[in-house]
Amino acid sequence: MGYSKTDELAINTIRTLAIDATFAANSGHPGAPMGMAPVAHVLFNKFMTFNPKNPDWANRDRFVLSNGHGCMLHYALLHLFGYALSMDDIKHFRQVDSICPGHPEAHDTPGIEVTTGPLGQGFANAVGLACAQAHSAGVFNKPGFELFTNHTFMFFGDGCAMEGIASEAASTAGHLQLGNLIAIYDDNHISIDGDTKCAFTEDVSKRFEAYGWHVQWVKDGDHDLQGIEDAIQKAKEVTDKPSMIRLTTTIGFGSKLQGTGGVHGNPLKEDDIKQVKEKFGFDPAKTFVVPEEVYDMYHKHASEGAAAEQEWDSMFEKYASEHKDLAADLKRRLSRKLPEGWQEKLPVYKPSDKAIASRKLSESVLEAIHEAVPELLSGSADLTGSNNTRWKNAVDFQPPSLGIGEWSGRYFRYGVREHAMAAIMNGLSAYGTVIPAGGTFLNFVSYAAGAVRLSALSHQRVIYIATHDSIGLGEDGPTHQPIETLAHFRALPNFMVWRPADGNETSAAYYVALTSTGTPSLLALTRQNLPQLEGSTIENGIKGGYVALEDKEAQITLVSTGSEVSLCLEAVKYLKDEKNVAARVVSLPCFEVFDAQDKEYRLKCIPDGIPALSVEVMSTMGWEKYSHEQFGLNRFGASGPYKDVYKKFEFTPEGIAKRAVATIDFYKEVKPLRSPLQRAFLQLI
Amino acid sequence: MGYSKTDELAINTIRTLAIDATFAANSGHPGAPMGMAPVAHVLFNKFMTFNPKNPDWANRDRFVLSNGHGCMLHYALLHLFGYALSMDDIKHFRQVDSICPGHPEAHDTPGIEVTTGPLGQGFANAVGLACAQAHSAGVFNKPGFELFTNHTFMFFGDGCAMEGIASEAASTAGHLQLGNLIAIYDDNHISIDGDTKCAFTEDVSKRFEAYGWHVQWVKDGDHDLQGIEDAIQKAKEVTDKPSMIRLTTTIGFGSKLQGTGGVHGNPLKEDDIKQVKEKFGFDPAKTFVVPEEVYDMYHKHASEGAAAEQEWDSMFEKYASEHKDLAADLKRRLSRKLPEGWQEKLPVYKPSDKAIASRKLSESVLEAIHEAVPELLSGSADLTGSNNTRWKNAVDFQPPSLGIGEWSGRYFRYGVREHAMAAIMNGLSAYGTVIPAGGTFLNFVSYAAGAVRLSALSHQRVIYIATHDSIGLGEDGPTHQPIETLAHFRALPNFMVWRPADGNETSAAYYVALTSTGTPSLLALTRQNLPQLEGSTIENGIKGGYVALEDKEAQITLVSTGSEVSLCLEAVKYLKDEKNVAARVVSLPCFEVFDAQDKEYRLKCIPDGIPALSVEVMSTMGWEKYSHEQFGLNRFGASGPYKDVYKKFEFTPEGIAKRAVATIDFYKEVKPLRSPLQRAFLQLI
Repeated sequence: MGYSKTDELAINTIRTLAIDATFAANSGHPGAPMGMAPVAHVLFNKFMTFNPKNPDWANRDRFVLSNGHGCMLHYALLHLFGYALSMDDIKHFRQVDSICPGHPEAHDTPGIEVTTGPLGQGFANAVGLACAQAHSAGVFNKPGFELFTNHTFMFFGDGCAMEGIASEAASTAGHLQLGNLIAIYDDNHISIDGDTKCAFTEDVSKRFEAYGWHVQWVKDGDHDLQGIEDAIQKAKEVTDKPSMIRLTTTIGFGSKLQGTGGVHGNPLKEDDIKQVKEKFGFDPAKTFVVPEEVYDMYHKHASEGAAAEQEWDSMFEKYASEHKDLAADLKRRLSRKLPEGWQEKLPVYKPSDKAIASRKLSESVLEAIHEAVPELLSGSADLTGSNNTRWKNAVDFQPPSLGIGEWSGRYFRYGVREHAMAAIMNGLSAYGTVIPAGGTFLNFVSYAAGAVRLSALSHQRVIYIATHDSIGLGEDGPTHQPIETLAHFRALPNFMVWRPADGNETSAAYYVALTSTGTPSLLALTRQNLPQLEGSTIENGIKGGYVALEDKEAQITLVSTGSEVSLCLEAVKYLKDEKNVAARVVSLPCFEVFDAQDKEYRLKCIPDGIPALSVEVMSTMGWEKYSHEQFGLNRFGASGPYKDVYKKFEFTPEGIAKRAVATIDFYKEVKPLRSPLQRAFLQLI
Repeated sequence: MGYSKTDELAINTIRTLAIDATFAANSGHPGAPMGMAPVAHVLFNKFMTFNPKNPDWANRDRFVLSNGHGCMLHYALLHLFGYALSMDDIKHFRQVDSICPGHPEAHDTPGIEVTTGPLGQGFANAVGLACAQAHSAGVFNKPGFELFTNHTFMFFGDGCAMEGIASEAASTAGHLQLGNLIAIYDDNHISIDGDTKCAFTEDVSKRFEAYGWHVQWVKDGDHDLQGIEDAIQKAKEVTDKPSMIRLTTTIGFGSKLQGTGGVHGNPLKEDDIKQVKEKFGFDPAKTFVVPEEVYDMYHKHASEGAAAEQEWDSMFEKYASEHKDLAADLKRRLSRKLPEGWQEKLPVYKPSDKAIASRKLSESVLEAIHEAVPELLSGSADLTGSNNTRWKNAVDFQPPSLGIGEWSGRYFRYGVREHAMAAIMNGLSAYGTVIPAGGTFLNFVSYAAGAVRLSALSHQRVIYIATHDSIGLGEDGPTHQPIETLAHFRALPNFMVWRPADGNETSAAYYVALTSTGTPSLLALTRQNLPQLEGSTIENGIKGGYVALEDKEAQITLVSTGSEVSLCLEAVKYLKDEKNVAARVVSLPCFEVFDAQDKEYRLKCIPDGIPALSVEVMSTMGWEKYSHEQFGLNRFGASGPYKDVYKKFEFTPEGIAKRAVATIDFYKEVKPLRSPLQRAFLQLI
């Protein structure tokens, strides 16, 4: 109880570091760090348990700065507590290749849990982290062994509060009764356009109550450290609801421009810095100053965290002797390695096996591997029966009090909340004990684009199960039929887009998705049935592309994915019978993985000397890398039975053959006719 | 007062039409139409004013079915009231080229105001329609001439209620005090995954109250027609708040599966249909039956609507004599034509003019044309100062009671709600009197992808002002730097992506965006300054691409957009001086518009005989259509001063020159070397 001069000094040290760093960078956001330094100080120093020397400790408290533009707040804290983030790093805030980039990036900076900045994302990530904690506790905690007890703390501002993704995530968290989640709302009345009265006059507290949250209000977030402490303490004591603490603060506290938008996204001016530092008792002539007693105070707390980890390690040792399998499982999960031999469970198909929709093939994979891969947590954004994401005996991930599931349940009912689903999955993945897979229609992954991008940027092993992948969904029509979607996600760096053509390719897609620890994946799956292909094997599939039908005399290569590969095989027969043209077929289920194969292999697939024609019932964009000519759909689709829709757009053996012949004719005279894989220079990656 | 047997018969006619149409299509959603038929009947027949013979009447009441999968409800009503939607059309529900597609499409079906189905969109569209009404009333209504008085009625279900976009839009509507908006929440406890208790247990009514809505609850939506009527009447009387009526209904009312997910997305079985029809007093042996008294009742209401329009027309005639200019302006707006000569206001630049960021150039356009184009309604998702979307003397669009704007104001403060902004703009555009333009960072247009797609599909003239368009934004870093974004939107059909290189191109982009009545546009604009180019004119720009620097001896064409065009011009000098290589430059600000030029023109820009190298600091995807080789950024960016970031990725004259030389070498031996514009066959459009 009680706060001293040192506390005040620590708070002002955080503030002046944010001031100095943004000034040095001539860029950045000093306002939020200056306004939130008091609550950050209380939270980190009084409540949070962590060990800066091991930012990966499994049971550390998690902190998420959803208003990520205020990241100098977090960088300052990480430095002061002794994470591997030096004063020199802070001096290089917002400089190329610094570990203090303009917004927090999980992959590069120790102590940053998730990548935030795009507003609302961190909010939903925190919900995911809290879900992962509840789930891990449900799976691993045993009487006397409370392995997973950590809290997830999250700061968010008015910007996050306005974003739909945060609304979706807050509704989810309320439903799930996440007592381990404590969110602090920086109620400073300021967003970039100025006073929130211009656009945001709702009653945020009442809204969170409606979601089922426990809500408090601390009216003087600038000074009332004890009030902040009491509120956080009370929030911890509420264990059957997530907590939201509305904290009224002054943005840019101390600045001449405090309380205005002027201090949100611009460094303070020199004279303003001078007066702030004087007011705070700092020497205006000096920059990047940390009083020794501040380091001492924070290092003391850090060493308590290190001790807590040691204690946990001892507990874990005992746990390992009493619950050998669970302990081994947990260790393995944390290493991000899959159980040995799991891949032998993957379904294998013969060409004589019956035609099945790839969404059903995906279901068979989940059915086959879910026992072998216990960290897999499936789910859907309210399309379970359509996405086929649920194995038969799955238990729902639910608070036990609802009577419809368990914390240890492995099926997540995300509701119709695609964007939050994706960002919650990013949080689940970031926790370290779970591999999340979530379903929706491919077209509606676009609703989640903001979060999908961050799956890729922050290297999360997240799997998007995206069914109803084309005009092949038929009657639902153009509002539901993806055209641009695969181009969009294929253009996203560090992201694997799979469009398997049959059962073996679907198994291959899961194999690569699950074993790629730092890359998210999307599986585009059909509603309609697909035959099992002759040349398809899991081994071929995991190369991202392979020759599905070879013909040494071929005059053209047909390159295709998913439902159009079998159509191309039909077109080959038609070409032979009706046009006396020999053709070969390449299946290319994943561009990104195919690109990673050696050039010799790739050129065997798409060789020099004959033209290649791509066939895919959506935007042709991106196919020029793998084909000379492209047959696709650069317009919206149509509502009708899918065979009629395919016919309307000439996706028939005849339609393909016509274009194949035109392509052969067109390239006859070109010498040398190089494979489109032959490039003049390599791209930077 | 009082409801008769005919009312009941009408309700059951709607239900059986939905049953028959989904059964005939063997596809579709009978549950929502069967559950919502009572409220639809009361609303359409007692409250809504419309003339089926003129679905474009400016002051018609608007109806939006946000749960668009229930569209058979709306198609049935449109048919019954006498819109140009025949029984034969209904019999072709969900068939190729029918005007009754699987989800409602505004562009093709008379009486459908906006395209819905993707959940939550219609909710936000309705907010946009209501805003447009309030704005149009603010601009055009005069004492004695209440030209714009219509209401916007909207149905939404649990799915919409869960979507973040609807939350954003509801918060916006509450802030704006839209008393002309009445939303009916189909509280049937069922979503696709079954009972909403699985994922959605919040207090929706309380949430809407928190947003500032007037909320009522009708507990028996299946039978209580009078209660429904009273609630809608009361909602109309509340003029300073939007209204939400929670209506508890039974999904699939009458079916054996009523109240379950089984009736949501599947046609009823034959035996179920038999019992429903018998229960409703319909002959089970007959299909698509409409009793004459139902037609009579609805046609009577329709004729009242036609009379109301006539009355309005007479009022408008008088208005035209007393307010000549306003009347002419309104007529012109409704014709979607711009005022004569408006384009002469577009800023024109000389090469000697100073370098300016294209976001500022965009601001200059808005400043220059806003008086000439009064239907332009600008705005931003809380990035006004960064997007430069506000002309100097703009008045905010706000409810006057807030004291910070007027209904007639033309600047929309969307808050940090990108997705709702886009969908609200779709609604604003659909109303017919407004051209909306809304700003955010290019990277965050992705948050709005679901609605942007519908701008394109539903042919709305919406302008996305997307600033901070590349790594050129610098310090904010990879979380904010678009890589995949332009590829994504370039792959979207019926959508124009502009990335102007200077002032004249920016003016050209606005010219084409504003004059394209059925196509939305996105303007990707820089944060950093751009020089005014030698070859650039508005006339060149509106072709979507042109030769920015010609050289008849050129060994290579550099094709580029935006900030990289001037870099290419520098590279040309470097190539000449350091490598003795002649190069020419093509600026390609808009692929879609360039594609629409004749082939001769396009081949003049990107000719046969020499290779073309594209240069753009983002994903290379899509550039293969215009170049043989691509220099881009197929990885995430970096946080730092933008010049450092450009240098890191070799976007310098040297970096371009190196790749140009490699490209020339690589293509030396290829004969004939065709322009990438030469294709073997034409795409279907």
